[in-house]
Amino acid sequence: MALIVQKYGGTSVGSLERIQHIVSKIQETKQKGHDLVVVVSAMHGETDRLIQLAQKLSPQPDAREYDALVSTGEQVSTALLAISLIAKNCPARSYTGQQIGIMTDGYYSDARILDVKTDLMKQELAQGRVVVVAGFQGTSTQGDVTTLGRGGSDTTAVALAAALKADECQIYTDVDGVYTTDPRLILEARLLPEIAFEEMLEMASLGAKVLQVRSVELASHHHIPLRVLSSFHPGPGTLVTSEDKMIQKRTVSGIAFSREEAVIALAGVPHFAGVEGYILGKISDAHIEVDMITQNTVGKNTIDLIFSVPRKSYMAAWNIVTQLAQELKAASVSNNHKVVKLSIVGIGMRTQTGVASTMFQALGKVGIPIQMITTSEIKISVVIDEEHLESGVRAIHQAFELDKLPHKMQISMAETGS
Amino acid sequence: MALIVQKYGGTSVGSLERIQHIVSKIQETKQKGHDLVVVVSAMHGETDRLIQLAQKLSPQPDAREYDALVSTGEQVSTALLAISLIAKNCPARSYTGQQIGIMTDGYYSDARILDVKTDLMKQELAQGRVVVVAGFQGTSTQGDVTTLGRGGSDTTAVALAAALKADECQIYTDVDGVYTTDPRLILEARLLPEIAFEEMLEMASLGAKVLQVRSVELASHHHIPLRVLSSFHPGPGTLVTSEDKMIQKRTVSGIAFSREEAVIALAGVPHFAGVEGYILGKISDAHIEVDMITQNTVGKNTIDLIFSVPRKSYMAAWNIVTQLAQELKAASVSNNHKVVKLSIVGIGMRTQTGVASTMFQALGKVGIPIQMITTSEIKISVVIDEEHLESGVRAIHQAFELDKLPHKMQISMAETGS
Repeated sequence: MALIVQKYGGTSVGSLERIQHIVSKIQETKQKGHDLVVVVSAMHGETDRLIQLAQKLSPQPDAREYDALVSTGEQVSTALLAISLIAKNCPARSYTGQQIGIMTDGYYSDARILDVKTDLMKQELAQGRVVVVAGFQGTSTQGDVTTLGRGGSDTTAVALAAALKADECQIYTDVDGVYTTDPRLILEARLLPEIAFEEMLEMASLGAKVLQVRSVELASHHHIPLRVLSSFHPGPGTLVTSEDKMIQKRTVSGIAFSREEAVIALAGVPHFAGVEGYILGKISDAHIEVDMITQNTVGKNTIDLIFSVPRKSYMAAWNIVTQLAQELKAASVSNNHKVVKLSIVGIGMRTQTGVASTMFQALGKVGIPIQMITTSEIKISVVIDEEHLESGVRAIHQAFELDKLPHKMQISMAETGS
Repeated sequence: MALIVQKYGGTSVGSLERIQHIVSKIQETKQKGHDLVVVVSAMHGETDRLIQLAQKLSPQPDAREYDALVSTGEQVSTALLAISLIAKNCPARSYTGQQIGIMTDGYYSDARILDVKTDLMKQELAQGRVVVVAGFQGTSTQGDVTTLGRGGSDTTAVALAAALKADECQIYTDVDGVYTTDPRLILEARLLPEIAFEEMLEMASLGAKVLQVRSVELASHHHIPLRVLSSFHPGPGTLVTSEDKMIQKRTVSGIAFSREEAVIALAGVPHFAGVEGYILGKISDAHIEVDMITQNTVGKNTIDLIFSVPRKSYMAAWNIVTQLAQELKAASVSNNHKVVKLSIVGIGMRTQTGVASTMFQALGKVGIPIQMITTSEIKISVVIDEEHLESGVRAIHQAFELDKLPHKMQISMAETGS
């Protein structure tokens, strides 16, 4: 008998039929003798409907009122789930974030959870009830409704699991778990039975959208085992856990990629102390985020500075850089906004050598030129031309034998929701 | 400078355009220097949409969860109204019943308000803000969301006005006020500038659906002047107030009628002590509400008992009565389920004589037979054939010179909402 927190996303509660499907999943868990807290998102489409209403009344709706408005979406789905559970003789009660005591700071639409009261949940669990809690929301110390931002329901689930010291936090979604890489791009992608928190964080920040970064950080901090699994297909999903609890450590767990990249190169810039800071300062003054940076000192007195920016900011960055090139008398400027970033992530890298060279050789063998390289402790990223994305990912996937993992994927669609 | 509570019903907030229209009405009131608390219902249709969702999941949804669900409708409209007010530079904040502190008993879907906290409202009013409160809802002492039943938003408005000792509670609806009789039936109907609480209560309980009975009782108890007026047309509406504050007392203020009546007559029932109680007991055992009752002792040993029941219960009552007639050896049974009840209401009746005879003569003059009569202190009701409804109301309306009142009606549709 364990205490489990389950979270169901927007598509998982997207219709009355799906809500009834969840009821049977919850009943299965209950029949195994587990105590259960269930966090739900708003029904798919509902949050957007409410946002549109607000925006028709005001281009910039008041932040407090905006949160009061959109938080109703989750209240509706919690009440509907509880109604459905009770109708099937499964005792349950729905609670808003405010009612159950999810205390946040006062940053509307992007609030952080400060504290979670557990008395009421423990009381309800002791009575044998399923506690259904609205995700994505809490209450400020002033008593106002706050929301946690998109994906906040994952964070709610982990925060409740942490406060209750739950045995596991299960995130039900419309994918079967975490894959070695995006199965929509590479058919050979395999489901990972487990992945370390740090790997998951790197995967998430690199664009793998299965879990919200904040929820993984929180689970890692509180040592809450996090399981990602499908609402629609049976299966164990992927367990996200601490490195020391993993059964099998792989050198590389996954390959993440991002299409949202552009590269700008300034070549032959006369060198003076602080020239790099001067250039990048101008970029950040325009609120453009610089991701990867490489600098080559070509000759004695000039440098080459290459950096990547989000593709959406590319034009703005390019305008700044061409002006800087004139001002600094750079030899040339060039750009490539049809590039992708491709990263391998794995805690095994810490102890194994030759990982980078395996990656670079795999790309070289299929004739893919590498434009930039950055490395960190458990991650190696390269920038390559967008046209090589698929063949590059496949080559690396094979090189690290990720296609030898047993689990095959099941086709499903993308989950979007709060 | 006064403190005013305004309530806007479901059709008044039925679309974004109407919400923006209300914003201008609120701004007008603010510009006069008044402090303002605004109670709103759910957008027209929203509560029904939520109820349908619940009923698809369960034929009898759990009461607690049902209230948690339907209460979200008002939260949406309060937030949208606040967003719209703030966008027009009118400081405002929305509150749920729970947040503002509307304490109720635990009878879900039909809760009664026990207490209203005023600290937060007073604080917000002192800051110059419009306080927008969700109608129709409160919180039980256990912290659960409760709803007050249909029409509950009127009650919320009056309860807030009473707690704040407001100068006036204004109920904005889609009729211009309270009419001498239903203007959809009788074109000569006139708007009443004022009406006494007791008259309004009789009118409401007789089927005039402008105000919820409970809200009028509450306003009467706390001596809160209640004004019914239109969201759509300018005008002073009707002031519902204490008898002693009325400028002009009329003998008869209004004519109410109800089509939902049926009459059953048992004639020549052998008399024994308690026979009336025996007969009516059988009716009430079947949960049928008996409204009017008349009893004639025809001869020494038999009685005639005539009573009216709601038309929807007529068949059930008729079956019981035909059995009773056999059992009690009554001379005959008969019925008329195409009758209407027509009532005149007026506090002037207390002191004036001849009111009943004026009414009966008016009906007699146009050849309408009266089937039953009952009277109370400020009301006289008769049952007549349904076909005579319009001519009967018109005859009485003229007899008491109600068509001589100055205000004419403006065409509008029926308000439905919580």
